[in-house]
Amino acid sequence: MKINGKAYRTIWLAPDGWSVEIIDQTRLPHELIIAPLKSLEDAAHAILTMQVRGAPLIGATAAYGMAMAIREDASDEAIDRAIALLAKQRPTAINLRWALEEMRRAVQNFPRAERVVAAYDRAAQICDQDVETCRRIGGYGLQIIKDIAAKKKPGERVEVLTHCNAGWLACVDWGTATSPIYQAHDAGIPVHVWVDETRPRNQGASLTAYELGSHGVPYTIVVDNAGGHLMQHGDVDVVIVGTDRVAANGDVANKIGTYLKALAAKDNDVPFYVALPHSTIDWTLHTGANIPIEERSSDEVLKMPGRLPDGSVVTVEIAAPGSSAGNPAFDLTPARLVTGFVTERGVCPASNEGLLSLYPERKG
Amino acid sequence: MKINGKAYRTIWLAPDGWSVEIIDQTRLPHELIIAPLKSLEDAAHAILTMQVRGAPLIGATAAYGMAMAIREDASDEAIDRAIALLAKQRPTAINLRWALEEMRRAVQNFPRAERVVAAYDRAAQICDQDVETCRRIGGYGLQIIKDIAAKKKPGERVEVLTHCNAGWLACVDWGTATSPIYQAHDAGIPVHVWVDETRPRNQGASLTAYELGSHGVPYTIVVDNAGGHLMQHGDVDVVIVGTDRVAANGDVANKIGTYLKALAAKDNDVPFYVALPHSTIDWTLHTGANIPIEERSSDEVLKMPGRLPDGSVVTVEIAAPGSSAGNPAFDLTPARLVTGFVTERGVCPASNEGLLSLYPERKG
Repeated sequence: MKINGKAYRTIWLAPDGWSVEIIDQTRLPHELIIAPLKSLEDAAHAILTMQVRGAPLIGATAAYGMAMAIREDASDEAIDRAIALLAKQRPTAINLRWALEEMRRAVQNFPRAERVVAAYDRAAQICDQDVETCRRIGGYGLQIIKDIAAKKKPGERVEVLTHCNAGWLACVDWGTATSPIYQAHDAGIPVHVWVDETRPRNQGASLTAYELGSHGVPYTIVVDNAGGHLMQHGDVDVVIVGTDRVAANGDVANKIGTYLKALAAKDNDVPFYVALPHSTIDWTLHTGANIPIEERSSDEVLKMPGRLPDGSVVTVEIAAPGSSAGNPAFDLTPARLVTGFVTERGVCPASNEGLLSLYPERKG
Repeated sequence: MKINGKAYRTIWLAPDGWSVEIIDQTRLPHELIIAPLKSLEDAAHAILTMQVRGAPLIGATAAYGMAMAIREDASDEAIDRAIALLAKQRPTAINLRWALEEMRRAVQNFPRAERVVAAYDRAAQICDQDVETCRRIGGYGLQIIKDIAAKKKPGERVEVLTHCNAGWLACVDWGTATSPIYQAHDAGIPVHVWVDETRPRNQGASLTAYELGSHGVPYTIVVDNAGGHLMQHGDVDVVIVGTDRVAANGDVANKIGTYLKALAAKDNDVPFYVALPHSTIDWTLHTGANIPIEERSSDEVLKMPGRLPDGSVVTVEIAAPGSSAGNPAFDLTPARLVTGFVTERGVCPASNEGLLSLYPERKG
């Protein structure tokens, strides 16, 4: 998608042909900084510090991290070490582990000398496939928005609420939850997005607002507390969010606070959709209960980066001095609260049967 | 309650005997500043800018604002003008209107020359009564905490979650939601409080954390998004919040986001109590649907005050440049989600029958 009229992806091969460049998302929305990743360790660090974040982009970055590791040392042992290092950076997003296994499969039957080419090929493919997957998700989600628009007066806006950033900045391009929004906007359907701020890291106010604004989609930031009130007053037509991992029964792990919005949607008969690529489904987990929930640093709650009037970026302490903070990064939304999944193969109910109807190859 | 070992109220008569002093709550937790209010206009400004906030304290400040107005001009016309000015500063909290009517009643049958003494007497009484009311609320709420503690292993903490600040800083002393917590702590019952940050003004992270810490009560700040996750994992025994207005049917207007916590409490069988004095009940409203919900400045969402490492306090812009924000300050929690009300007369169900059982003089 575009920033200041220039088309970007979130990750791309550098001109040297082997290192990669990313948009450093810890600096957005205050500064647009392109950061180089020149090694496995750089990739691991970028994932850990959330210079890259969002389940699909974590997977894409891990894929290039593997390619750079294999370029250094293509032995089975080195590949095992690289997978172990990358896998432990973020525990909740399943796309990370999916991408690592894809990379292992892509190289394991090649002699060492040929592994590096195979690795870069597969990493590029993972990125390109993510773009196409997100584009397709958007196409299916567009139909949901069209159906809502058809029931409105001409020119009346479709009101979408989203939580966190499941936008193109969370993927390689298009986004998952935002892809239907972009496609509706581009098709001339009037759409307006309520952007949950998404404390503690403010991915909504920072990233979703930034990318919607850059593309020209109307939006309004609200604090995470406000979504229930908006739904009570009929100001939300549909909620669309992304996810970091979906269990085989349809339970959804996503950014902390998603569960609260799903409860409010249910209580107010607002449809609640989760947009995801197949790589976010963890077929090994019968329910979401065993999805590991990452606990992050209390500093994310107690401190806040922002711009001073002179444009410089500082971090301030915002809470009562001496306070401690808990910081669970994800929560679990039970499948019963989810209206449906929007995937690259279509829309299905949030259940094992629903998922298997789109992915029949997973049966038995 | 105490700050650095010294006992404070939130508002008190200055040594001059006619002006009042307050703790400026817009400066907490970064600075403890005592601000003078020397006129009706000062009182109105303090309420508007939230130097004082919290339903009971807004009422107490309005009472002294009326006393200062009457000291200037004790005519019926001046009293009407003062009431009109103060009433419009905050639309949601009913205590404001209650205190203004109390002040009118206190002076209306006196000759003008005697009104100023009557006004200061009634304002002082409103403050003292609020302290006693909150103390009693705490006594009834203490029993709820004792009952939970009795089912735990010896030494195991009772886990309370609260939203916003319904603490002594929201009242004159003790607080409403916090009074049971202080009394339990003082009685040696181990209690720990999950403090919702409470965006956008962060009254939890700023004020509730500050006052709990000053009194020595263990607490942990969490973002507003986290409460549902904590309840899903059995980490919350009881939710206790305050309120700005309760309708006659038990619907509760309180700080934005309260509704989401009530939904999560219901979904996880966690008892959800609302603590309030009688002055917060609006007997004229059959349901909460007509409670006016204040929309506040988008700056509260888009900017954030905090401390730099050198201790200086600055305000930073935190969202994507050019963003607009919505800022509804309150939401409505339907009575069906509330386990009970904790008042100065005891605990009752959140219903018209429940309220009338404690306030039978309101029947018919």
